Amino acid sequence: MMIIMRTDASKREIEAVIEKVKANGLAAHISEGEERTVIGAVGDGRTIYRDQFVLLPGVDRVVPISRPYKLASREFRPEDSIFPINGVKIGGPEVVIIAGPCSVESRTQLLETAHAVKEAGAHALRGGVYKPRTSPYSFQGMGQEGLDLLMEAREQTGLPIVSEVMREEQIPLMTSSVDVLQIGARNMQNFALLHAVGESGHPVLLKRGLMATVEELLMAAEYVLSHGNKRVILCERGIRTFETATRNTTDINAVPVLKELTHLPVILDPSHSTGNWNYVTAVARSAVAAGADGLIVEVHPHPDEALSDGGQSLKPERFVELVHQVRRVAEAVGRQVAPPKATNPAGQGLQQAPSAG
Amino acid sequence: MMIIMRTDASKREIEAVIEKVKANGLAAHISEGEERTVIGAVGDGRTIYRDQFVLLPGVDRVVPISRPYKLASREFRPEDSIFPINGVKIGGPEVVIIAGPCSVESRTQLLETAHAVKEAGAHALRGGVYKPRTSPYSFQGMGQEGLDLLMEAREQTGLPIVSEVMREEQIPLMTSSVDVLQIGARNMQNFALLHAVGESGHPVLLKRGLMATVEELLMAAEYVLSHGNKRVILCERGIRTFETATRNTTDINAVPVLKELTHLPVILDPSHSTGNWNYVTAVARSAVAAGADGLIVEVHPHPDEALSDGGQSLKPERFVELVHQVRRVAEAVGRQVAPPKATNPAGQGLQQAPSAG
Amino acid sequence: MMIIMRTDASKREIEAVIEKVKANGLAAHISEGEERTVIGAVGDGRTIYRDQFVLLPGVDRVVPISRPYKLASREFRPEDSIFPINGVKIGGPEVVIIAGPCSVESRTQLLETAHAVKEAGAHALRGGVYKPRTSPYSFQGMGQEGLDLLMEAREQTGLPIVSEVMREEQIPLMTSSVDVLQIGARNMQNFALLHAVGESGHPVLLKRGLMATVEELLMAAEYVLSHGNKRVILCERGIRTFETATRNTTDINAVPVLKELTHLPVILDPSHSTGNWNYVTAVARSAVAAGADGLIVEVHPHPDEALSDGGQSLKPERFVELVHQVRRVAEAVGRQVAPPKATNPAGQGLQQAPSAG
Amino acid sequence: MMIIMRTDASKREIEAVIEKVKANGLAAHISEGEERTVIGAVGDGRTIYRDQFVLLPGVDRVVPISRPYKLASREFRPEDSIFPINGVKIGGPEVVIIAGPCSVESRTQLLETAHAVKEAGAHALRGGVYKPRTSPYSFQGMGQEGLDLLMEAREQTGLPIVSEVMREEQIPLMTSSVDVLQIGARNMQNFALLHAVGESGHPVLLKRGLMATVEELLMAAEYVLSHGNKRVILCERGIRTFETATRNTTDINAVPVLKELTHLPVILDPSHSTGNWNYVTAVARSAVAAGADGLIVEVHPHPDEALSDGGQSLKPERFVELVHQVRRVAEAVGRQVAPPKATNPAGQGLQQAPSAG
Repeated sequence: MMIIMRTDASKREIEAVIEKVKANGLAAHISEGEERTVIGAVGDGRTIYRDQFVLLPGVDRVVPISRPYKLASREFRPEDSIFPINGVKIGGPEVVIIAGPCSVESRTQLLETAHAVKEAGAHALRGGVYKPRTSPYSFQGMGQEGLDLLMEAREQTGLPIVSEVMREEQIPLMTSSVDVLQIGARNMQNFALLHAVGESGHPVLLKRGLMATVEELLMAAEYVLSHGNKRVILCERGIRTFETATRNTTDINAVPVLKELTHLPVILDPSHSTGNWNYVTAVARSAVAAGADGLIVEVHPHPDEALSDGGQSLKPERFVELVHQVRRVAEAVGRQVAPPKATNPAGQGLQQAPSAG
Repeated sequence: MMIIMRTDASKREIEAVIEKVKANGLAAHISEGEERTVIGAVGDGRTIYRDQFVLLPGVDRVVPISRPYKLASREFRPEDSIFPINGVKIGGPEVVIIAGPCSVESRTQLLETAHAVKEAGAHALRGGVYKPRTSPYSFQGMGQEGLDLLMEAREQTGLPIVSEVMREEQIPLMTSSVDVLQIGARNMQNFALLHAVGESGHPVLLKRGLMATVEELLMAAEYVLSHGNKRVILCERGIRTFETATRNTTDINAVPVLKELTHLPVILDPSHSTGNWNYVTAVARSAVAAGADGLIVEVHPHPDEALSDGGQSLKPERFVELVHQVRRVAEAVGRQVAPPKATNPAGQGLQQAPSAG
Repeated sequence: MMIIMRTDASKREIEAVIEKVKANGLAAHISEGEERTVIGAVGDGRTIYRDQFVLLPGVDRVVPISRPYKLASREFRPEDSIFPINGVKIGGPEVVIIAGPCSVESRTQLLETAHAVKEAGAHALRGGVYKPRTSPYSFQGMGQEGLDLLMEAREQTGLPIVSEVMREEQIPLMTSSVDVLQIGARNMQNFALLHAVGESGHPVLLKRGLMATVEELLMAAEYVLSHGNKRVILCERGIRTFETATRNTTDINAVPVLKELTHLPVILDPSHSTGNWNYVTAVARSAVAAGADGLIVEVHPHPDEALSDGGQSLKPERFVELVHQVRRVAEAVGRQVAPPKATNPAGQGLQQAPSAG
Repeated sequence: MMIIMRTDASKREIEAVIEKVKANGLAAHISEGEERTVIGAVGDGRTIYRDQFVLLPGVDRVVPISRPYKLASREFRPEDSIFPINGVKIGGPEVVIIAGPCSVESRTQLLETAHAVKEAGAHALRGGVYKPRTSPYSFQGMGQEGLDLLMEAREQTGLPIVSEVMREEQIPLMTSSVDVLQIGARNMQNFALLHAVGESGHPVLLKRGLMATVEELLMAAEYVLSHGNKRVILCERGIRTFETATRNTTDINAVPVLKELTHLPVILDPSHSTGNWNYVTAVARSAVAAGADGLIVEVHPHPDEALSDGGQSLKPERFVELVHQVRRVAEAVGRQVAPPKATNPAGQGLQQAPSAG
């Protein structure tokens, strides 16, 4: 932490800052410039509360030196985290595709979609049963009945299941039913929920909040990691900006930035990041070209009858085309879309928790 | 809902849209322009899922006509909602000031602050015991012990208590301890929590998310209202923009906009909306000048020793000055800062739930 | 400038940075932390190009210490800049109100407005004759004919004239016709134009760009100041954010922030910052409550016939009410709306250029 | 244009709106809903000023139906605009790469870069001689001397030249020296300059403003097109958001959105859109994967000695690698990076103005 003094700071004010640095168990390095003095607080600044210095007389501002996250950082763990989701390895050289409907709506809808995405080459099935909806009057999800349908779909296709958890109380039921717990964008800073999924030890797909910086996304991951759960997948799903031509703005920069800052797998959700099925395939290609480790895509057999997110869902035949195109781009950047999993007729259920990496 | 067709839409495509409108139980009004046809779907569009039309062939876009919230709207209830918080009326002509530390840190800190803000003219005491912190390594709040201190402070000062609830499980304990349940900005779209505080029937202070539109704030209020709880206070606390000179950008426009769109009380939090104590008083004045019904302000006896938000907390003597200045501005706009409540030496405890308005 | 090294920077890399610091004529202060080394470059960093250090091997990032503007800063000039605009002092204790139509549209429209705002208590008349319009098909302004009308209005009312300059070629004509050259938001970083109005020596009203930071606004002012023109008025006119309830978001924080960072007068434009006449008066009050030195407000006798910005223009009778309310708020914060200027029947023409302050 | 009335609008208010629609030469279609009446104004709404309706009593809001641009739209011209820049075709199936230094700094620097990018496979040379700099104290460009160096570089390499024009006065000199006039992001809404380059008839590379919507970018292009110049290349170069991990946020969605809305060529500038050389190649790949027609990339032989934008410039050897990777991605999406132009030893000078498409 560097404490930058005002140009008119007095000697006494500078000394008071130095004392406070020492009182926090840090060493103080003083650098007297022509205009100002800058005081470096040397030691592990992560545990020190920054604001106590901001308020001291004569202080202009405080600049952190260390990054606030640790377990999530590449400095802490240089090699990529690679871990399997019911047999599908994520974070490694192969690109993984998760697909399925926004919401589970009926047995027919789900099974039809599950078989279609499986056939098209998807590696996991998504489907929401607890839905965070902006309006209290909108469809709120099928709940437990939906979970049963997801398990049936897994049994039929062998595809692992990704589904969103909205409340701590849902965690025991969810961990016994689905393979990956999704934390939705609106809950990215629901710290109680992050804490709880951290303790669950179950794989987590953490979506970036639509107002969250990359650093805040990594801090949210740190919540999960610091409670003992190393299997966290980060997901860029578009941020909110002034642009209204698309529902959100895909922050494609976040892909190489995250791959540099963290060892965790990074995937992209072109359905939410554009909000328009018409742009999903182009942005899916761009994600893989930029270095994403996977995609999560909304697919619905009849988007115009969907109860949520119809406008951004692909029909199965368009998803086939997306996989085909993404496969070519993956090869162009020296990777491969993971080969389809052989169907597991018995339904393998949940994998035993392997340690990350 | 108006469905705007593409310039090249065929007759058949137009007819398909009309049929779908009718299938949804709405009437269809057709308006043929020189370039395009526009189809009006007449009826209560709130229950209709918009995306099903977006996807029909030949459709360019869909424009909603009705607002998506109802109970929160002034069209539904033209007169202001006024309700008491343990004896302090909010939403009426008098301006209400809530003040206190960001976090409850110790008995001494809390009681010292409570007496100071009471003396300065505050009408309610704020103080967090469950803290949503960006970092898992930061102070997470005193929990139940802090609630006991808040109740002691209420007993000594008679000030009603405002404190943040982060998890559904905390609600029973919180409703029996504090007078207003605060929903923090990061939980504004934690719909499960909104649902639960709606059912609690307890007064709610709902903070705008830092990337939430005014409409989304009203939809979040609609969640609480639609579960039977009419006592919701809306709070502008700054939004996230590209500007970095202050931690957030105070959206002062939101004050007159909200006062026009809704009957609910609207207050402003200049501590979070600026993130810098130095600007708090100026922005507090501006809020009341713009028509806010109240303020919530962070005050700490020793900001440089605070465990959270020290940089934006006022010292008690500066808070005295804030109340003084705000009082003058309130009078200039034809209102009054509510007179201080007489101390209630016996500690009045919680009020009986009066019906709103 | 502090150069923060990576945790894995080698000794040789650190030495290379130190050498480069010295080669730039600065002194190097080395601070070795537990994790990293930080190198302070001591001297006037304003003239040094930061990126040359970013790129050296082993460098993590570079943090500027000095502010990039100088002439505009309060550190350079602690006392407020106060200067007269054709007899009206701006930047001092009195609040100044500039009002008039968005565009000059006709003799009748302009003169009717000019007399109305004069009577209501305005101190200067605004009116555009060169209009920056998003669409090439929109009304582009009356040009020189409009300037003649503005001069006639000044002669009749004695009000000084504020009008926007869009091109360098217009400057000679404009400086001989109007009292203040306005630089519009979309030209805030038209550096050639800033340079030219700087050399003109004529008073400048510089509007903040809709996506410009406070620091960039001050850098734009620095362009004008550094070319010898000290009479610059800064104008907050709303920034672009994700919120669509209003056309722009009034950054009310910018008022106390600017008053702290610079000695230049700061005014606010509630017409553009809201884009809706319905909110203009509330936001005008908030601006003065927050410490603004003045307002610029759009007024039109028949807003529904205006050729531009009708939706945000006040009718004269509403403007009368705005002045009345702002007057009360100004007094509540210990200031005064400047008394109306006595009409100057002869038309005083342009003032002689006084030196600032 | 649809005029949406308030729920409480009176019959008389509705009639007044209808009359005003007719007075504007449009037909009125009335659609009476359960809650509200909506009035459609049928005819070419592009020439009608929307705000005049917003202000009529009883009106809630006005929704435009037609897009505000015409010449730039695909509806107006369905097939792609393809035109040559001194022999290099842009907008067709082949991907075009423009590269060079941010600023022309010296003969050695420019020629070294020009030969390097030529050899690596670039099709045009960029280099600024008039530089829009945030600070008046920064290097402002070499001016005419720089133009001479650019012409020398073209003579030696045969590469057409792209360079930024900042002022109308520079246009005659620039059109006789360079092949493409660049309009920088900060001048995207400098309408006088757009008008002037429109009249010049010279090819224009129009950069999106960092605060401009896609629609505003197309309106800026419309300025150029409507003054008779059909050769406009659009360039996404990153927008300003709340994210600070990169200098700007690459709006990758804008690529497929623009390709859908307009027939004009669309390129992307990964150097500015990231602000960090480290991310340039990944984002360049993503741009081509998303469907961009070309790239403009900053290359400098010694980035750590550059006078501007060093931090985002690639060294020549890294640019070779970028071209190599982009080539593979182009093929994966069914396109090709254009083959390198044979060196033109005589220096071909400016091409004769061919008509677009």
